[in-house]
Amino acid sequence: MEFFDVVTTRRSVRKFTSEPVPEAVVRKALDAAILAPNSSNMQMWEFYWVRSPEKKAAAVKACFSQPAAATAAELVFIVSRVDTWRRNRDLMIAELKKSPDVKQSALDYYQKAMPAVYFQDPVGVTGIVKKVAISAAGLTRPVPRGPTSRAALFEMVTKSAALAAQNFMLAVVAQGYACCPMEGYDEARIKKILGLGRNAHVVMGVAFGKPDPKGYYGPQIRFDKNLFVFEV
Amino acid sequence: MEFFDVVTTRRSVRKFTSEPVPEAVVRKALDAAILAPNSSNMQMWEFYWVRSPEKKAAAVKACFSQPAAATAAELVFIVSRVDTWRRNRDLMIAELKKSPDVKQSALDYYQKAMPAVYFQDPVGVTGIVKKVAISAAGLTRPVPRGPTSRAALFEMVTKSAALAAQNFMLAVVAQGYACCPMEGYDEARIKKILGLGRNAHVVMGVAFGKPDPKGYYGPQIRFDKNLFVFEV
Repeated sequence: MEFFDVVTTRRSVRKFTSEPVPEAVVRKALDAAILAPNSSNMQMWEFYWVRSPEKKAAAVKACFSQPAAATAAELVFIVSRVDTWRRNRDLMIAELKKSPDVKQSALDYYQKAMPAVYFQDPVGVTGIVKKVAISAAGLTRPVPRGPTSRAALFEMVTKSAALAAQNFMLAVVAQGYACCPMEGYDEARIKKILGLGRNAHVVMGVAFGKPDPKGYYGPQIRFDKNLFVFEV
Repeated sequence: MEFFDVVTTRRSVRKFTSEPVPEAVVRKALDAAILAPNSSNMQMWEFYWVRSPEKKAAAVKACFSQPAAATAAELVFIVSRVDTWRRNRDLMIAELKKSPDVKQSALDYYQKAMPAVYFQDPVGVTGIVKKVAISAAGLTRPVPRGPTSRAALFEMVTKSAALAAQNFMLAVVAQGYACCPMEGYDEARIKKILGLGRNAHVVMGVAFGKPDPKGYYGPQIRFDKNLFVFEV
């Protein structure tokens, strides 16, 4: 399917038919998700395809039994994490070292800069110290301002996971299905179902399947783009 | 261009040729960005196309003069906001009212639920009260857990802006150009250039143009997908 057709065809569809989605369609969409760009290629994301009927029923309940979830042929939850950075950094360094002409600066970036970005102590003192030091340094020259707090770190990893989510949704549509991104869920209950703790955020649920024509709730509304698009 | 070709062609390219990008290409990518799904269709995003040579030079500096920014034919910054919700909610209600059979529940959603989601007092007390009330209610039934804090609100709007960013980048690639998403910038300086205050976050800079073959830094690396993709 042509790219711009996919973009304009994608609508949030809130009701699906009972037609199943072939496994290959889901796997192809997951593969597309992972090709999204992400912060320093640290890949701090996870994708949970809820296949067990018990877990799916529980997830639907945790999504307040909204029609999109309740009628979805498939449900995938996209998750961001702040605690897999040591593992991923080491994997990245190992990959870089496979190249005979790897630059020391690239290795240093992962060895030295990533801990500075991701390390958080349990109380958050490191973040405050970092913030003060950054503000001082920033008086005279451009400096990266964050992330300093744990919340800012989550905003960063969630941002990358959202890029993957958009690839995933478009890939579902490109294969002739429809989807509904959902943020309307009880995150604590979804985490329990997926076995996640405090170092993960549930970024989005994606319900998908063949669209029921009744699943389109009115026309697509976008406000006047002059409210958002600025040439400066 | 076929959708999956766009997804696999997209690589972060860190050097561009001097070939200009036609205006129509940029506008088409911006139009695609705005078609991304977003939280409750509140469209809490903004897109800054940096065209003035002075502002562009300043933005390149604030991006630490990284080659992607310095060589980019065009630079767009994607921004998320937490303060445009009253305006956007009113616009949404006006749009919904155009339909003769609008449901009261839809109007209530914007009239009542959106203030509950977006309102923050300057000190953050509302968020704490909300959090306590939510935790209590959540003991017996599924409840939406957030956003309660200002940081969580920013994570939510940034998530939607990232969906738009991915549409934007793919749309650039679909038109035969290449791009580099950038988080490496001095956010305080970029905000100053764009005239933004504390109610906005700079989600991402996107540098784009015709790719210089030297702009591909090594092969695309993704870790074993079994580390991220779980069937539960």
